[in-house]
Amino acid sequence: MMPFLTEMWGTPSAPHQKGQELYSAIRDSYKQLYSFLGAKEEDTFVLTSSGSEAVNHVIHSVYRETTLPTGKNQFLTSKVDEAPAIMAVGALERLGCVGKMVPVNNQGLVTAESLATALSPRTALLSLSWGNGLTGPIQPLGELSALCRQRGILLHLEATHILGKLMFSLEETGADFITFNGDQLHGPRGTGGLWVRHGVKCAPFISGGSDQGGLRAGALNVPGLVGLAAACKEGADSVDYICTEIARLRDKLENGIIEKIPETSLFFRNQERLPHVTSMAFPGVSNEALLFLLNRKGICASIGGGHFQQLALMLIESGINEKTAQEALSFSLSRYTTEQDIDEAIPLIVESVIQLQKLSQKLVS
Amino acid sequence: MMPFLTEMWGTPSAPHQKGQELYSAIRDSYKQLYSFLGAKEEDTFVLTSSGSEAVNHVIHSVYRETTLPTGKNQFLTSKVDEAPAIMAVGALERLGCVGKMVPVNNQGLVTAESLATALSPRTALLSLSWGNGLTGPIQPLGELSALCRQRGILLHLEATHILGKLMFSLEETGADFITFNGDQLHGPRGTGGLWVRHGVKCAPFISGGSDQGGLRAGALNVPGLVGLAAACKEGADSVDYICTEIARLRDKLENGIIEKIPETSLFFRNQERLPHVTSMAFPGVSNEALLFLLNRKGICASIGGGHFQQLALMLIESGINEKTAQEALSFSLSRYTTEQDIDEAIPLIVESVIQLQKLSQKLVS
Repeated sequence: MMPFLTEMWGTPSAPHQKGQELYSAIRDSYKQLYSFLGAKEEDTFVLTSSGSEAVNHVIHSVYRETTLPTGKNQFLTSKVDEAPAIMAVGALERLGCVGKMVPVNNQGLVTAESLATALSPRTALLSLSWGNGLTGPIQPLGELSALCRQRGILLHLEATHILGKLMFSLEETGADFITFNGDQLHGPRGTGGLWVRHGVKCAPFISGGSDQGGLRAGALNVPGLVGLAAACKEGADSVDYICTEIARLRDKLENGIIEKIPETSLFFRNQERLPHVTSMAFPGVSNEALLFLLNRKGICASIGGGHFQQLALMLIESGINEKTAQEALSFSLSRYTTEQDIDEAIPLIVESVIQLQKLSQKLVS
Repeated sequence: MMPFLTEMWGTPSAPHQKGQELYSAIRDSYKQLYSFLGAKEEDTFVLTSSGSEAVNHVIHSVYRETTLPTGKNQFLTSKVDEAPAIMAVGALERLGCVGKMVPVNNQGLVTAESLATALSPRTALLSLSWGNGLTGPIQPLGELSALCRQRGILLHLEATHILGKLMFSLEETGADFITFNGDQLHGPRGTGGLWVRHGVKCAPFISGGSDQGGLRAGALNVPGLVGLAAACKEGADSVDYICTEIARLRDKLENGIIEKIPETSLFFRNQERLPHVTSMAFPGVSNEALLFLLNRKGICASIGGGHFQQLALMLIESGINEKTAQEALSFSLSRYTTEQDIDEAIPLIVESVIQLQKLSQKLVS
């Protein structure tokens, strides 16, 4: 990114040298991104400033391109979706749209049956978080996308936690829109992407000029584009490693913990799930207390929030009882996680859990 | 920006060390930005990904917070405004709003009279480009903001070309919203800002979480924030230099050209205008041809486009005849422009103009 943050500061849309000298880097970056996604040349890719912006872009675009001309005003998400989709649909509700969150089963999955129950002739869009970045379940696309196609419903997949983690065929997803956040793929802050299948209408979200084919105003963020493309290339190269070695380390973490604390609840373990994520609950331990104690020991975990939903709420939607859900924590590995990291983390997590269990027993007694 | 693009990659909203270690840099950056704008602590500042996003944010926010609850659905811009405001209002027209571009006088200015004629009891917002980055005129805020206040109209100023170029009192502008683009202030690509006066309602544009007080979803772009704040600090420190030395160099450029080509039309010269911008027209010279010829000689000029309007169209709106407008070019200096730059540019511009004038005479004869 450095040349583009320093000497090569031109605006690509400006018809002079400072703009033109950026062309080859821009072209190479788009090629890397298209290749990473498995996109066709005639598909559209919009560089956004975040996954959140990309999700808002999709939902507002469908409102403009489908709802306004056809009256189809129902927008579906799932009960375990992330905040941008749910809240962008919420914003449309003030304009006369109807949002509905499709329930999930006890595997955290939207089924064809629950989708069939939720949809109506007025459904414009199903927006799904493809793989859940806190709990791991991967939505069963085959059935869902077939149903969407059959009923004339556009399908948006938020794919941040899938990209670079799982192999897939873009064609087979059946998606019309795919969005992702750059910094969660080791790309630079302030980047994200929106892919639009060729032939699907897309309106601008940020209006105001001819940049990015008129689909996003504002001078192209060239350093961001170059950094994101490099991150995606590295991501593509490490999918195998993530699916084998990192999945093994994640399993080692789970096994190491459950060996010492057998009463731990491990969620979504016996199903298809993301290779780098695990969530678990420790009886008698408040997840917030554990989160803060682990932080002091150098371990970063998550209970959701930010653009995620609360972990506890998503677990409750998946049929986990409320008390257990409030005791749950999510751990996430990356391709930089080492065996040594895991070997050090297990005893730290175990001792922290036991420490808090003792404390809570004292408080009760 | 470097530490925040490398080791300090945490998410500020995440409750652990990698997030917390960012706090002091974030706090210092916001302080610099508030100080640069002259904002009060209780005012709101939203870091956006561009000026275009910030402008869209204002216009959509006014739609949600004013139009939907009150029915006030008229949005005013000016005939010399930039593309994001005009096109964001255009997007609202599909939702039942009415956009109107207020005419300008032959100084390129919106007058209180033309505003009074254009507004109605249903006017929600006046959105103005405060200083025109291609032609230089500075809108007369006193009268306009008084009229807006008196008639209950919100006032948005797009201030990209004013910030770091002119001293002003935020209070005296009477503005409710101020937006700007970061990279045009020597900040990093992918940054912009939105200031909201304390007490003015603002809705999120990118929905989806609690980041930036719920006003903009997506993890805070910390490297962008830090870079933008540093650029604004440098911008504040160089206002005097721009208003004196750079204005002198701009005048030297104008005088040097008109001395050799006395038939040059210089626009908006005898009025209050930006210190670093000039626009001029050379009889018998197509501005596109001149733009490309100058580019080959290392001089970057502009005829508008991108997020700007076409220069020619803005000049026509200001009463310049169409033929002259099509011969016009805009030059812009920065604090890095040197006397030597200007001394070298004058003969290059002059020889290019004469070369093209001869060519066009040949074509005619």
